[in-house]
Amino acid sequence: MSIHQTCNSLIETLRHRRQKLATRIDFPVILWSGTSIPRNYPANVFPFRASSHFLYFAGLPLVNAAIRLEAGKLELFIDDPAPSSALWHGEMPNREYIATQIGADVAHPMAELESYLEGVATIPVQDPATWTQQSQLLNRWILPRHQLQGIDLELAQAIIELRLTHDQQALAELRTAAAVSVEAHKAGMAATPSAKIEAEVRAAMEKVILAQNMTTAYHSIVTVHGEVLHNEQYHHSIQPGDLLLADVGAETEMGWASDVTRTWPVSGKFSSTQRDIYDVVLAAHDACIAQVRPGVEYQDIHLLACTVIAQGLVDLGILQGDAENLVERNAHSLFFPHGIGHLLGLDVHDMEDLGDLAGYEPGRERSDRFGLSYLRLNRPLQPGMLVTIEPGFYQVPAIINNQEVRSTYQYTVNWERLSQFADVRGIRIEDDVLVTENGREVLTEALPTDANTVEELVCS
Amino acid sequence: MSIHQTCNSLIETLRHRRQKLATRIDFPVILWSGTSIPRNYPANVFPFRASSHFLYFAGLPLVNAAIRLEAGKLELFIDDPAPSSALWHGEMPNREYIATQIGADVAHPMAELESYLEGVATIPVQDPATWTQQSQLLNRWILPRHQLQGIDLELAQAIIELRLTHDQQALAELRTAAAVSVEAHKAGMAATPSAKIEAEVRAAMEKVILAQNMTTAYHSIVTVHGEVLHNEQYHHSIQPGDLLLADVGAETEMGWASDVTRTWPVSGKFSSTQRDIYDVVLAAHDACIAQVRPGVEYQDIHLLACTVIAQGLVDLGILQGDAENLVERNAHSLFFPHGIGHLLGLDVHDMEDLGDLAGYEPGRERSDRFGLSYLRLNRPLQPGMLVTIEPGFYQVPAIINNQEVRSTYQYTVNWERLSQFADVRGIRIEDDVLVTENGREVLTEALPTDANTVEELVCS
Repeated sequence: MSIHQTCNSLIETLRHRRQKLATRIDFPVILWSGTSIPRNYPANVFPFRASSHFLYFAGLPLVNAAIRLEAGKLELFIDDPAPSSALWHGEMPNREYIATQIGADVAHPMAELESYLEGVATIPVQDPATWTQQSQLLNRWILPRHQLQGIDLELAQAIIELRLTHDQQALAELRTAAAVSVEAHKAGMAATPSAKIEAEVRAAMEKVILAQNMTTAYHSIVTVHGEVLHNEQYHHSIQPGDLLLADVGAETEMGWASDVTRTWPVSGKFSSTQRDIYDVVLAAHDACIAQVRPGVEYQDIHLLACTVIAQGLVDLGILQGDAENLVERNAHSLFFPHGIGHLLGLDVHDMEDLGDLAGYEPGRERSDRFGLSYLRLNRPLQPGMLVTIEPGFYQVPAIINNQEVRSTYQYTVNWERLSQFADVRGIRIEDDVLVTENGREVLTEALPTDANTVEELVCS
Repeated sequence: MSIHQTCNSLIETLRHRRQKLATRIDFPVILWSGTSIPRNYPANVFPFRASSHFLYFAGLPLVNAAIRLEAGKLELFIDDPAPSSALWHGEMPNREYIATQIGADVAHPMAELESYLEGVATIPVQDPATWTQQSQLLNRWILPRHQLQGIDLELAQAIIELRLTHDQQALAELRTAAAVSVEAHKAGMAATPSAKIEAEVRAAMEKVILAQNMTTAYHSIVTVHGEVLHNEQYHHSIQPGDLLLADVGAETEMGWASDVTRTWPVSGKFSSTQRDIYDVVLAAHDACIAQVRPGVEYQDIHLLACTVIAQGLVDLGILQGDAENLVERNAHSLFFPHGIGHLLGLDVHDMEDLGDLAGYEPGRERSDRFGLSYLRLNRPLQPGMLVTIEPGFYQVPAIINNQEVRSTYQYTVNWERLSQFADVRGIRIEDDVLVTENGREVLTEALPTDANTVEELVCS
C-alpha cells in the first residue's frame, strides 16, 4: 500500500493498535513525528523519517505532526499547509483530509497541542529540535533510551508489547520490503561480474529499491572486505577471486524495514576454500531457521549457530576439539563475533531507540561474555515476531592477529590450516524470519542461499 | 580525486586557501566538521555530511573533527579510532596519518581543543549536537546564519570572499560532479519510455551517481508535475503525453556539487505546444548564458531571462503587449516565478547557511517585487564564480487560477490561448556556468539542450 492511497484497512489497523494500547495503560499519550534535519544548510535537508512509534499509531509519515492517544481515541495535531506553499509544493492535503485518512476522531493545529498536555506520557524522538520541544512543552526532561522513567517508561513497555509481534497490516508491509530486497540482491549478483568497484554493485542494488519509490532501511554494506563488519565504504576495486558481501534492505514508504545479506563470488565461482566456509555458514543458517518456533529462546538459537560453526570449523581442521567445549571457551567467536540477529519491524533493529528494553526480556541483561555480549535479542520467541537469522564467518585482523588471542587459542586454532583460507575474508547469510503459530516463515525465501544457485545468479 | 588517494596538490591548495584567509583576518579560527545524525535510532544515522566551511579548509570529510587556522597555520583536532573500533570498522587512519594527508602543522585529540579557544571565531555547523558544543566551548551563543556578529561575522565575510570564486582544485571537483550529472541525465532520458512511475526514472539517474561512489547534492526532482517547483514525490504514473522534468545533481566525495535540470517528452516526441514553450525557455537559457562574463550584474541576467520569456510568450499569443513593459508589470512571473539561478560550490546553493550574506553584495537586499524576491544571487560576476542558469515556464495552479491574478492580468494574458498549452505544465533547463576571464564555460555543456537531440536521447 502506498501513502498516496490509504484505505479502510489502515484505519481499522490503527484503531485496533490504539485499543490494544488502551488496555495496557490508563494515561494519555502524545507521540511526535519529528521534523526534517538540515544537511549542509537549512533548506537542504536529509530525507524525512518520521519517528517509528508515531508511524506505528499514525500510519503515515507526516512531517511536524503529533498524535494524542487516550482510551482508544486518536487526536491529530498538524498545521495546514501555508497558502504560499502551494507555489513551491503544490496542493498539499489539509488537516481534515489527513485526519480522515488515518481515522482521527478530531484534528487541531499544532499550536493547540499545549492545551492537551496534562498527565501525558511520551517517547523521545531522534531529531534534536523536536526532542527539545518535547521537554519544553511537557516541562520535564524527556530522557533518552533506557533512562526513561515513570509513565514514559510504562508507555515504552506497553508499546514494546504491541510492536514485538506484527499484525496483518504490518506483515503486508514487511513482506513488500522483503520482496524488494530480494530483487535488489539478484540485481547486485547480476551486476557484479562487470563491476570495477563496490559502488557499482551498490548502485545496481539500490536502484531496485529507489525504482519502487522506497528507501534503504540502513546504510548498505556492499564490500569485498566483509571482514569489516560495519563497512560503509564502496571504493574498493573488485577482483575476480574476491567474495562480495552485500547487506542491503529496503524500507517501505510507511517505514517498514527488511534486512538481507548474501555473499557471492565475484567471478561467479566459489574457490574450494570459499565454498567450504560458505557451507559452514549456510549449515548454521539452516539449522537456526529450523529452530525458529514459538517458545524457543532466541539465545539458544544463537548458541546453536555458534556450535554448528565450531563443528564446521573442526571438520575443516581450523578448530581443534569438541564443538560444545569450543563454544564454552568462545573459540567460535574469533570467527563469528556478533549475535545471530535481532528484531525487525519499523526499525531494522526494531525499537533500538529504547536501548535493550525491547530486545531483552525484563530481568535479563547483556552478558559480558565476548561471544554473547553483542546479542541484540534475548527473549523467547512468540508468534508474529520477525527476527533476522544472520550467521557469519570473518577473518577480522584485529582479532586473529591479536597476540593475546593467538596465545590463548594457540592449540585450539590450527593457525597454519587457517592460513590456507586466506581468500575467505568475510561471509554472512541473513534472512528475515517470521515466527508463526506452528513454526516459521522465511520472508526472504525467494532469494537462494545454496552455493550453486548463487553462482548461477552471478553468472546469469 | 578520491578521498582515498589524496595528494600533494590538495595539501598545496589547502595551504593557499588558509594563507588567503590570513590576509583577510587577524584572529584565530576554529571550524568544526560536525557529527552523524540519528535517523530512527542512535546507531542508524543519516549519511555523514561535513560542514562545507570545514571541507573548504580541511579537504577531507572527517567525522567529529575540528581545525584551527591562525596566520596560515593548520592544526587538526580529531580522536584516534578506539581500539575496539577495528572490530567493526576495520583499520581506520589515525590522527597522524590524517594530519599528513591534509598538511596539518600539528594534530591533537579533540579533548585538547578547549586549550586553544581564546579569541577564536567560528561558523555554526548544521548538526544540533555539534552546534550546542560550539556555543558551550566558546562560552557564547553562536548565532545562526545572518545573525552572526563580531569576529564570527568578519570570518564569514572573509570566507565568502574566498569561496565566491573557485581555485583549480575546486574546479576539478566541480567538473567531475558536472560530468557525472550529465551521464545521470542521459540515463534518465533513456530509461523514461519504459518507466511506469517517476521513481523508476529517478532510480536510473541516481544509480549513475551511486556507481561513481558519489551522492546526490540535493533531493532530486524527477516528475511529470514540473509545475510543482519543489516536488519531492516520485509516485506519479508517467503517461506518453507528459513532459518529465528532472533536476538531479551529483556531489563528489569531497563535497562539491552540481545542479542540472532537463525536461524531456516521455514519448520521445514533443507535442507542437510543448516544443513551442520549450524553445521559449531555451531561448532565455541561451541568451542568459551568452551574457555571463566578468562585471555583468547577475540580476541583469535574471531580467534578461524575464524579457526573453515575455517576448516568447507574446510571440505565441499567450501574453499581450511590449516585453519590457510586461516584465515591469511582473507578467512574466506568472509563468517564471523563481530566480534565474544561484551560486554553486560546496553547497548547491553555495553558502546559503549564511543566509543572503554570500548571495547578495554588501549593501544589497532582497527585493519585495514578486518577480525578483526569489533571486538568490545579486552580485556582479567575477572570474572563477560558478553559477546556475535555469529559466523555466510553469503553469502553477496556485498562480494562474488565482482570481486576483486573473483580474489583474485580465487583458495581459490571453487566457483562452493559454488553455491550448495545457500539456505544458512545467519546463526548466538548467546548466552550471563558470565565469572565465573572457566570458564563460558551461561545465554541463555535454548534455544537449536542443529539442531534437533531447528527443533522440529519449528514444536511443
